[in-house]
Amino acid sequence: MTRTLPFPLLQALVGDEEVGALFSNEAELAAMLQAEAALAEAEAKAGLIGDDAARQIAEACGSFQADWNKLAEGLGKDGVIVPEFVRQLRAAVGETHAKAVHLGATSQDIIDTALVLRLKDAVAVIDRRLDALMAVLGALKDRDGSVPLMAHTRMQQALPFTASDKIETWVQPLARHREALRSLAARLLVVQLGGPIGTRGELKGHGNAVAEAMAAVLGLGTAPSWHSQRDRIGEFAAFLSLLSGTLGKIGQDIAIMAQNEVGEVRLASGGGSSAMPHKSNPVPAEVLVTLARFNAGLLGTLHQALVHENERSGAAWTLEWMILPQMVISAAAGLNRAMALIEGMSFSPSKFLEK
Amino acid sequence: MTRTLPFPLLQALVGDEEVGALFSNEAELAAMLQAEAALAEAEAKAGLIGDDAARQIAEACGSFQADWNKLAEGLGKDGVIVPEFVRQLRAAVGETHAKAVHLGATSQDIIDTALVLRLKDAVAVIDRRLDALMAVLGALKDRDGSVPLMAHTRMQQALPFTASDKIETWVQPLARHREALRSLAARLLVVQLGGPIGTRGELKGHGNAVAEAMAAVLGLGTAPSWHSQRDRIGEFAAFLSLLSGTLGKIGQDIAIMAQNEVGEVRLASGGGSSAMPHKSNPVPAEVLVTLARFNAGLLGTLHQALVHENERSGAAWTLEWMILPQMVISAAAGLNRAMALIEGMSFSPSKFLEK
Amino acid sequence: MTRTLPFPLLQALVGDEEVGALFSNEAELAAMLQAEAALAEAEAKAGLIGDDAARQIAEACGSFQADWNKLAEGLGKDGVIVPEFVRQLRAAVGETHAKAVHLGATSQDIIDTALVLRLKDAVAVIDRRLDALMAVLGALKDRDGSVPLMAHTRMQQALPFTASDKIETWVQPLARHREALRSLAARLLVVQLGGPIGTRGELKGHGNAVAEAMAAVLGLGTAPSWHSQRDRIGEFAAFLSLLSGTLGKIGQDIAIMAQNEVGEVRLASGGGSSAMPHKSNPVPAEVLVTLARFNAGLLGTLHQALVHENERSGAAWTLEWMILPQMVISAAAGLNRAMALIEGMSFSPSKFLEK
Amino acid sequence: MTRTLPFPLLQALVGDEEVGALFSNEAELAAMLQAEAALAEAEAKAGLIGDDAARQIAEACGSFQADWNKLAEGLGKDGVIVPEFVRQLRAAVGETHAKAVHLGATSQDIIDTALVLRLKDAVAVIDRRLDALMAVLGALKDRDGSVPLMAHTRMQQALPFTASDKIETWVQPLARHREALRSLAARLLVVQLGGPIGTRGELKGHGNAVAEAMAAVLGLGTAPSWHSQRDRIGEFAAFLSLLSGTLGKIGQDIAIMAQNEVGEVRLASGGGSSAMPHKSNPVPAEVLVTLARFNAGLLGTLHQALVHENERSGAAWTLEWMILPQMVISAAAGLNRAMALIEGMSFSPSKFLEK
Repeated sequence: MTRTLPFPLLQALVGDEEVGALFSNEAELAAMLQAEAALAEAEAKAGLIGDDAARQIAEACGSFQADWNKLAEGLGKDGVIVPEFVRQLRAAVGETHAKAVHLGATSQDIIDTALVLRLKDAVAVIDRRLDALMAVLGALKDRDGSVPLMAHTRMQQALPFTASDKIETWVQPLARHREALRSLAARLLVVQLGGPIGTRGELKGHGNAVAEAMAAVLGLGTAPSWHSQRDRIGEFAAFLSLLSGTLGKIGQDIAIMAQNEVGEVRLASGGGSSAMPHKSNPVPAEVLVTLARFNAGLLGTLHQALVHENERSGAAWTLEWMILPQMVISAAAGLNRAMALIEGMSFSPSKFLEK
Repeated sequence: MTRTLPFPLLQALVGDEEVGALFSNEAELAAMLQAEAALAEAEAKAGLIGDDAARQIAEACGSFQADWNKLAEGLGKDGVIVPEFVRQLRAAVGETHAKAVHLGATSQDIIDTALVLRLKDAVAVIDRRLDALMAVLGALKDRDGSVPLMAHTRMQQALPFTASDKIETWVQPLARHREALRSLAARLLVVQLGGPIGTRGELKGHGNAVAEAMAAVLGLGTAPSWHSQRDRIGEFAAFLSLLSGTLGKIGQDIAIMAQNEVGEVRLASGGGSSAMPHKSNPVPAEVLVTLARFNAGLLGTLHQALVHENERSGAAWTLEWMILPQMVISAAAGLNRAMALIEGMSFSPSKFLEK
Repeated sequence: MTRTLPFPLLQALVGDEEVGALFSNEAELAAMLQAEAALAEAEAKAGLIGDDAARQIAEACGSFQADWNKLAEGLGKDGVIVPEFVRQLRAAVGETHAKAVHLGATSQDIIDTALVLRLKDAVAVIDRRLDALMAVLGALKDRDGSVPLMAHTRMQQALPFTASDKIETWVQPLARHREALRSLAARLLVVQLGGPIGTRGELKGHGNAVAEAMAAVLGLGTAPSWHSQRDRIGEFAAFLSLLSGTLGKIGQDIAIMAQNEVGEVRLASGGGSSAMPHKSNPVPAEVLVTLARFNAGLLGTLHQALVHENERSGAAWTLEWMILPQMVISAAAGLNRAMALIEGMSFSPSKFLEK
Repeated sequence: MTRTLPFPLLQALVGDEEVGALFSNEAELAAMLQAEAALAEAEAKAGLIGDDAARQIAEACGSFQADWNKLAEGLGKDGVIVPEFVRQLRAAVGETHAKAVHLGATSQDIIDTALVLRLKDAVAVIDRRLDALMAVLGALKDRDGSVPLMAHTRMQQALPFTASDKIETWVQPLARHREALRSLAARLLVVQLGGPIGTRGELKGHGNAVAEAMAAVLGLGTAPSWHSQRDRIGEFAAFLSLLSGTLGKIGQDIAIMAQNEVGEVRLASGGGSSAMPHKSNPVPAEVLVTLARFNAGLLGTLHQALVHENERSGAAWTLEWMILPQMVISAAAGLNRAMALIEGMSFSPSKFLEK
């Protein structure tokens, strides 16, 4: 039976289903609807729109059926999906309360808030996986820590040490990453609300109150509008690349130790070859290196988007859209790949130690 | 009616349907089948397998029904789709000629050749669009070339010149890109055939003959096996980034000239805003800048994969897979966006020229 | 009078004398001597070497005269300057205590500690300049904050706001950078001491005590050996790029607002042209954009060095050496350039606001 | 005796004296003087200035004594050295012919032409070294080609082959690079002459004639002014990164084969360690990897400068200045390092081949 997969096949190697789903069309739309409903609720609380309107908007958001083709068309024309989305949402809300939809907000308020809502989930997944990976490394250390290995510097044998020493160099940066993630989450996971030019000027003096109420509804923190201040995104991307880099270093170490000639690591099951049946390839270890180099390069490209001209840069913002999801998915995929790799490996004593 | 699009919505803004299709799961599979069939045909010609076997393989390739889930699984495990693909193809061919499938070849022979087959199509599309874009720019020059503009250096007014002078600076590099594309195509569009370690050793002295026959069947050029020599890929990627860069420069110029305060360019229809109905945003111009910065960064990341250790690097090769398709699509998308932009624009005389 | 400058002339445009000096040959040597003397002092305290030896080493470090040519030669041969440096230092210390020099340490302990010592100074300079820049921006806001400007989104006029609103978008990320710097300093500014393979194994059980004493002498924090864990370096580099990115955004805004056609910013003195005497170019604003793009790209390249194979990677470590100093200097240079730019600018009311 | 080296010590490891000298202050000044003298000679030929003036300018250029401090100051203020340089040159020429200096030219004409003049020398050096490296590899193949080695794919032993097979994979891309260099030289090595806004408008109809005569004097090709068309620079940078990548692959292979556990390569003399006298580190092999990753990243950053807004972008142009010289030096340094590495190595039969 022929069945086409709903995603590029390559995702089976370097992707992540759980985190990838956060960046699907459906997940983005759902988060946008959440943002619009929360905005309406907050504006009703501030007296900017009526309770009826807010209720009506919440209902419409709950049962919203997108015309995806028109959304795609609108995105292609306007450079952002929101104008067409708001048009459809207003139609769903009905004429009476149409004007209460998206009141005083701008496209970026909805897109950025919807992004942050999904980054919140991604942060939780990464945090959980970091914990799990550290636990698995701890278990490996408990089991194999005393295995005698040869340390290598500059690609040459140096002096003997143990698997425990090696594992320590893998775990320590992971612990720092976990701490860093928890610290940056407070800065990153904040609502975006600024209105057309970032001043909250259309909210008639209720801007801060609306932002706070909206954040409370969504479970996010508050901050002044950050439309053109992309350091939060850049900081998170740097975290992702640091994490991928640490995982890449682990993968590189394992691929080197698993060389036939070295034999300090055994892998439960290696990848097969179409031409050489005897091969057992350290595929997940290699993938960790790939993901590290990928995210490092993407980081350098994303930071180009920090030069965000004036109050909103279409060019810089679109560049973020093309890069950030890939980085989040790659970092998360690396954690899963590393977990499987560590769970399926064991250390073997170096054959090169003098007895 | 709810209908989910079969691709990330963002593609409506920065993607390219025609070239994107070349990198779909289906297109890759079709090219792999083409490569296996051509290999069999070439091997029959060299007497390495029987004509019956080749015929049987050709038929199986023509009617092949993939088990996509198993392909995905195999890719995830082996790091490359080919071992599982060959398993399925051999089953389709049947026991009698199963061993004649993929004889003397390795995964990389099939993957790289299947890539080159699709790059051939991509090269043709880009070549055609380059021609078309240059024609449109020529027409713009014919119509608006005499419009008096103000030249700007270092973001300041310099001296008067004409639209014709400006257009020349856009067209000249495009002409060089077109020439470069035609020159690199001969180097890029070559068959990959090396066997497990790139020596054509499993082809019993018929390696070169098989490679030449296979290339002839596929309409590709020949070259010694280039498994671990990725300069061809790196050169093509550099071409793509140079092209995107030239288009990004055109986009940047237009966005600057279309500023309300400058007014030297008028756009037929700008992008709308969810908050400011009076806005007419130069969306395609901005997208050209985005695509240029994206491809520039990806180029720097892809070139990391030139350090391809030993006879095949899983890490470096996978990195190519993650990057090259995005670059091809982005470059091609840029050409389409530029075309639409140029077709819908006109020059207006500078208001700042002394009479 | 002809006099050749002791540095590439380009530094006059994009360099920084104060921070550049931290990365001179002399400054590196001085920091290495500081590290060796502190190591000896700490080892004497732990009883690993005698007080006489430590005193003798301190004296030799104080009066050390390098044979620079041999140091260069040694670096070229060994890939690191330390083996030849230790040879020279031992000769200076004299035969009696020669063996007490560099005892139980490895090249990386000295190089990394000497780097951190200078990064400490760089962090102090950046912190001080961040304060100063924020003060200058505060003063600009006090003076010009009420000037009416036109906000721009997607390169088009949006709605009116004030210089105060604009300045806020520049100051807020700077405040976050200042806080981030103070937070990361505690992680970054730690001694490196691990011995040949990072285990402190040659220090006979006194490793932690020696590291702590050494850190105390040098005014640094302590941490387990981090030879192959380069996340601290990667995190600092990310900070530098974020800072440069924020400054680049300020520069881009100013270059756009200073366009003749826009005229919302006036610059005290612009750069001159060799061909157009009427020009007044926004040179420092442009340089801020340059430095942002430079540091963004370097960041992506430096993070490639996170894949640091085994206990010490010559390839990855050398890559850091080629990149990090440039990033620190560029970030610091940006702060100075931004300061001069802000001090010499004033806002002018937009000519495009309806009365 | 203490003597400070006139360059960062790190250059002893990753630098190149011969090519580095092309980017010294003195070399740049000399090339600028050459450009101004050639311009004057060409303008005299076209009748735009008198023969006396041209002679006087040639003499002044020949004996020019720069005030370096003022040049640095001018560069810092104007963003380009030329306005101050022309001031000094005019003073040296004397009042009578001062106006004939730099007539109808702009800063970029002089800077870019002076760059191209030095790139011509760099291209010659690289071409010569490519030849030499290929010769050395040929000699290695002649001597060691039959040594039996184990091929490795995906970091695992694959099948036996020979040193000759391995060397072929190194030489083939070098041959392509040599051919590419010769082909791009014709595009790259062209004079820059456009005047203030790139139209040759100040040359009163003699623009093309002056450009051709100037090119002839300088031994360069001609092309229309390419002020804002940076694809030539971007193409050359891509070449440099491809070359560095090929060398990095060679270095990586050698570092892997020289592992103690593998032992397929012996190095004449390895780098020493400050802590482990038994070590023999494959320093030049590691440096080749470093230079490859460095140039790959710089390429991605340089291509950001293709987005060169309007007729001259200070921001993009300055970015080129910061990057291109480093790339040229790194590529050239890699060739020298590779030469020394290959000359000092020999292949050893794999211990892992079945007899």
